[in-house]
Amino acid sequence: MIVKTIEAAIADLKKHFGENVSEGASVRELHAHGEGYHEQHPPQAVVFAESTEDVSVAMKICNAHRVPVIAFGGGTSLEGQLNAVKGGISIDLSRMTAVLEVNVGDMDCRVQAGVTRQELNVYLRDVGLFFSVDPGGEATIGGMCATRASGTGAVRYGTIRENVLGLTVVLADGRIMRTGRRVRKSAMGYDLTHLMIGSEGTLGIITEVQLRLHGIPETMAAAVCQFETLKDCVETVVQVMQMGVPIGRMELLDDVQMDACIAYSKLEGYHPLPTMFFEFAGGPASVQEQIETVEAIVQDNRGTAFQWSTRSDERASLWKARHAAYWACLAYRPGYTGISTDAIVPISALTDMILGAKEDIEASGITAPIVGHVGDGNFHTVMLVPPGPEGIEKARALDEKLVGRALSLGGSASGEHGVGLAKIPFMVDEHDSVALDVMRAIKSALDPNIILNPGKMLPPATI
Amino acid sequence: MIVKTIEAAIADLKKHFGENVSEGASVRELHAHGEGYHEQHPPQAVVFAESTEDVSVAMKICNAHRVPVIAFGGGTSLEGQLNAVKGGISIDLSRMTAVLEVNVGDMDCRVQAGVTRQELNVYLRDVGLFFSVDPGGEATIGGMCATRASGTGAVRYGTIRENVLGLTVVLADGRIMRTGRRVRKSAMGYDLTHLMIGSEGTLGIITEVQLRLHGIPETMAAAVCQFETLKDCVETVVQVMQMGVPIGRMELLDDVQMDACIAYSKLEGYHPLPTMFFEFAGGPASVQEQIETVEAIVQDNRGTAFQWSTRSDERASLWKARHAAYWACLAYRPGYTGISTDAIVPISALTDMILGAKEDIEASGITAPIVGHVGDGNFHTVMLVPPGPEGIEKARALDEKLVGRALSLGGSASGEHGVGLAKIPFMVDEHDSVALDVMRAIKSALDPNIILNPGKMLPPATI
Repeated sequence: MIVKTIEAAIADLKKHFGENVSEGASVRELHAHGEGYHEQHPPQAVVFAESTEDVSVAMKICNAHRVPVIAFGGGTSLEGQLNAVKGGISIDLSRMTAVLEVNVGDMDCRVQAGVTRQELNVYLRDVGLFFSVDPGGEATIGGMCATRASGTGAVRYGTIRENVLGLTVVLADGRIMRTGRRVRKSAMGYDLTHLMIGSEGTLGIITEVQLRLHGIPETMAAAVCQFETLKDCVETVVQVMQMGVPIGRMELLDDVQMDACIAYSKLEGYHPLPTMFFEFAGGPASVQEQIETVEAIVQDNRGTAFQWSTRSDERASLWKARHAAYWACLAYRPGYTGISTDAIVPISALTDMILGAKEDIEASGITAPIVGHVGDGNFHTVMLVPPGPEGIEKARALDEKLVGRALSLGGSASGEHGVGLAKIPFMVDEHDSVALDVMRAIKSALDPNIILNPGKMLPPATI
Repeated sequence: MIVKTIEAAIADLKKHFGENVSEGASVRELHAHGEGYHEQHPPQAVVFAESTEDVSVAMKICNAHRVPVIAFGGGTSLEGQLNAVKGGISIDLSRMTAVLEVNVGDMDCRVQAGVTRQELNVYLRDVGLFFSVDPGGEATIGGMCATRASGTGAVRYGTIRENVLGLTVVLADGRIMRTGRRVRKSAMGYDLTHLMIGSEGTLGIITEVQLRLHGIPETMAAAVCQFETLKDCVETVVQVMQMGVPIGRMELLDDVQMDACIAYSKLEGYHPLPTMFFEFAGGPASVQEQIETVEAIVQDNRGTAFQWSTRSDERASLWKARHAAYWACLAYRPGYTGISTDAIVPISALTDMILGAKEDIEASGITAPIVGHVGDGNFHTVMLVPPGPEGIEKARALDEKLVGRALSLGGSASGEHGVGLAKIPFMVDEHDSVALDVMRAIKSALDPNIILNPGKMLPPATI
């Protein structure tokens, strides 16, 4: 019965989309997963959409046949969001790469969902503006919205949530909805924009995004320093935040992560010690003031070799190493599977959390470098385990411990990677049953046939 | 039938709440309106809640009897949000004034919904932190959340939307839901916090709020300058924003508003000319840098008498005059009704918008001073009209013109006052029919008996 339905849906899709529908094994395999470690689940077919109208037509066909639909962007999500666990059709938006408008005076733009953050920033290079949200990987803007993504710039410029003014969304029945206006704030009606952000394709498919941009700061500087102990390193972060320094970026790498990065990115002159990367931005006097404040805090915490530079090549090579941290981890244990954790805690609990995580990691016997956007309390450990179910089970047990710690400190299981498949059990730990019921009620109201990315995010009502 | 239902509900409420239920005419009249100009609609009774549990019990009783419920805080809303247009019970939260926790290291706190922003800032005075959202009037934090309020600090610190980490909400059936965690970001599930913010009591009643706080800046300075033309004044605003100056506050008062403020707040040494108030905040070097940049822009635009001061008494008297602008307007035409507009546009359209508004105001013959948080494109005109339906009709016609202008420039009908009764027709102009349908579907899912503030915000499906 399901097979028949799918076949009928694919036939209808082919009638409309011709060669933009693919049932080829390699294409289906490419759409069976993100960058996570999960078992793969290929969709029965992939539709390559080129416009909002394409997505609308595809949704109408799939809705008529009651066939599951998974929206697919850059394929970079980490929690199994893209896997077709109930089969169905993957709608690939990666060909929707038009920058539709740039309003320089208002510092905003409108893009199709398939534009990546890197592409957008190349496009913007000549107008003195940039898009600030920078998760790892070649994520698309649509995928970043769906995942409620974040990155190293969030401590200053906010996550994707604070940088979206409005959306175009295709609903489960194929209708096209536009949310938000081209203004910084509005008090006119329910906040559908933020309801869609972070909904992981379970309430609608985001096809266009109105984004806030930021002026490229007049002056930028980068600094690095190292610490003998992890505690001193984390305390530095906490104090910088509590002093209210408008820091641009602030990233922590523990001794293991530094060891991996030194090897992978050929960083010279650094030791495998807990390390902080800072970025400062603003007017020249403001940047100088920030550097002095941070340097004093670093010295109070026995940090060594505080070096800073405004030279863009030196800044670039340092931050390139930071952005390559995930790949450095994978290269650190060749052939191993890397499974990332994503807990976040209130900043005052960060020292307890990270020192506790370090103990948990040691007790587990797993190699797990720590790296993170610690300015907002979020950090990752990339658990490196031998491939296969046994390693994954061990990693999951460690993650559960870390999430338990984070929740008991008032934190959350995920700062920026989302729920997908892997974090569904944590939804029950993190939210009360009434909140979960309300989420389910909204899901039922907007997707009564349960065709939008089914099996993701929401735990079954029986839990 | 309805009368009987209400009577039965009140009897049940009295059984539980005793003297905390009032049917007295004066109490009912106090709960028949906000600070807007609308016809008054008293509820049949008022319940004074003292805890989330009280609100839950009252909601359960009202739900059992299918009786409308209106949440009431400071009574300061402007668009008829509080009027009991379908009768029912007003639940007054103004006795819920506990500050439940303050986490200085994390710069957050948890308050009951009835705490006002002024009360909270007095409470925080000794810990070096402040709460940044400052609408006019003695608004409660709960009411500010429900209205998606904003104020003069939004250009730097964001609106209430960016300053709430989580909520406790009583749902239509009396169940208590907690949203959000005590962290700066999370990617775990639908964003119920932002769904509730701005829902004006139509999806649930907010009883507790986890708020972000900010460090009191090391240095603050205020500046004022005046312009011969409104165009020069608005262009200054636009250029300051486009230069990316991290301005603390930036408020515009037109010639008429200044005339009113000079008389009301006894401002000496100022002329009834278009005027800008600025506030700068940060480290001393950063503040100095901001002042220099803004002064240069002011001079480019032929601004006169740029004066700045870091003295807190001088700053306070200036900003007191700004905060009293609404009352200065009312005193400007004694006995007249003041009706505030609330349009917002993209910053690049601000010059066109405000100059156009000025023309519309002149054509209407209405005295209508302009004042606004122009840094984010939002401004108000207080239309002063003789009391009675004729004046109100004239004012409404002018507002419609201004909103039409704002929408055609990509703006919104309301930056911060909300929809209530008065702006329901604009919901249809501003949102597409699919977005309105989605809002209605969410309303039906969360309030199937239509008892939460019925008749507000959402236009009937037949429109």
